Amino acid sequence: MSAGPTPPGAPDGASPSPVRKARDAFRWDGVDVTRYKDAGSAPFRDVTRQVLFDVPGMAGEWRYFEVAPGGHSTLERHAHPHAVMVLRGRGRCLVGGAIHALAERDLVHVPPMTWHQFRADDDAPLGFLCLVDKVRDRPQLPTRDELAALAADPAVAAFVRA
Amino acid sequence: MSAGPTPPGAPDGASPSPVRKARDAFRWDGVDVTRYKDAGSAPFRDVTRQVLFDVPGMAGEWRYFEVAPGGHSTLERHAHPHAVMVLRGRGRCLVGGAIHALAERDLVHVPPMTWHQFRADDDAPLGFLCLVDKVRDRPQLPTRDELAALAADPAVAAFVRA
Repeated sequence: MSAGPTPPGAPDGASPSPVRKARDAFRWDGVDVTRYKDAGSAPFRDVTRQVLFDVPGMAGEWRYFEVAPGGHSTLERHAHPHAVMVLRGRGRCLVGGAIHALAERDLVHVPPMTWHQFRADDDAPLGFLCLVDKVRDRPQLPTRDELAALAADPAVAAFVRA
Repeated sequence: MSAGPTPPGAPDGASPSPVRKARDAFRWDGVDVTRYKDAGSAPFRDVTRQVLFDVPGMAGEWRYFEVAPGGHSTLERHAHPHAVMVLRGRGRCLVGGAIHALAERDLVHVPPMTWHQFRADDDAPLGFLCLVDKVRDRPQLPTRDELAALAADPAVAAFVRA
């Protein structure tokens, strides 16, 4: 998507509006709901992605991810950090070796090269804003040995989905 | 502030938590509420500032501003863009030559060198997330001539506070 697309109904060639209105159900005018990742590229379950801002002259990219009840993001790590705010619902996250409960407006900082995974509760979605730099490295999935090291902690072993 | 400060009550030297919990009234654990700008440096009314994320290895800085009912941010422009999401309340914004009503979760893109100002409604606060690059130019205030040019539009003249 581009930032500030022409609003629906605007004549061709009209200036794009700087404001995109929120719709129901955590959707926005002019923002496409896309796949979280390509199917088969990494383990995940029931996650959608919306790019809210990817504007010229700004280094950051601002996304909204929503994990459906019972779903989870990919267990991964990368050199670029994440800055996250929960916008909707409830869930838990693994960051490094610890699991944290998450509720609306909680903030999460995922430091570089830190294993992390987000899971929605079984009875609520988990929607969160996630800021990253546009220029960033690709996520890494855990090797069998890395997964075994993580799972040495029984709480982590019970939490992760990989 | 630094990202992920040691949570209150944690022993000295303990690792900072990656999660900072939301408190009531749009405050967060470990996040200071500061002045929007130095008093007298620019015209504004009843605005607070909280830096939610300013983390190593990330080009962006993520802030939360809250304009009290009846208050307003500074009318200004600068070369760096803003990416904004309304998190609380209601208000209006000027972006360029047009005024837009704002409600929760609406998105606003302020392009480079575009005059902008945010005002809360008289009976509600206007709280919004605002993403900028850490490295950015200083805001410019309008000259008398620039203000007169803006105010040539009666709707804009009635809106702006400068």
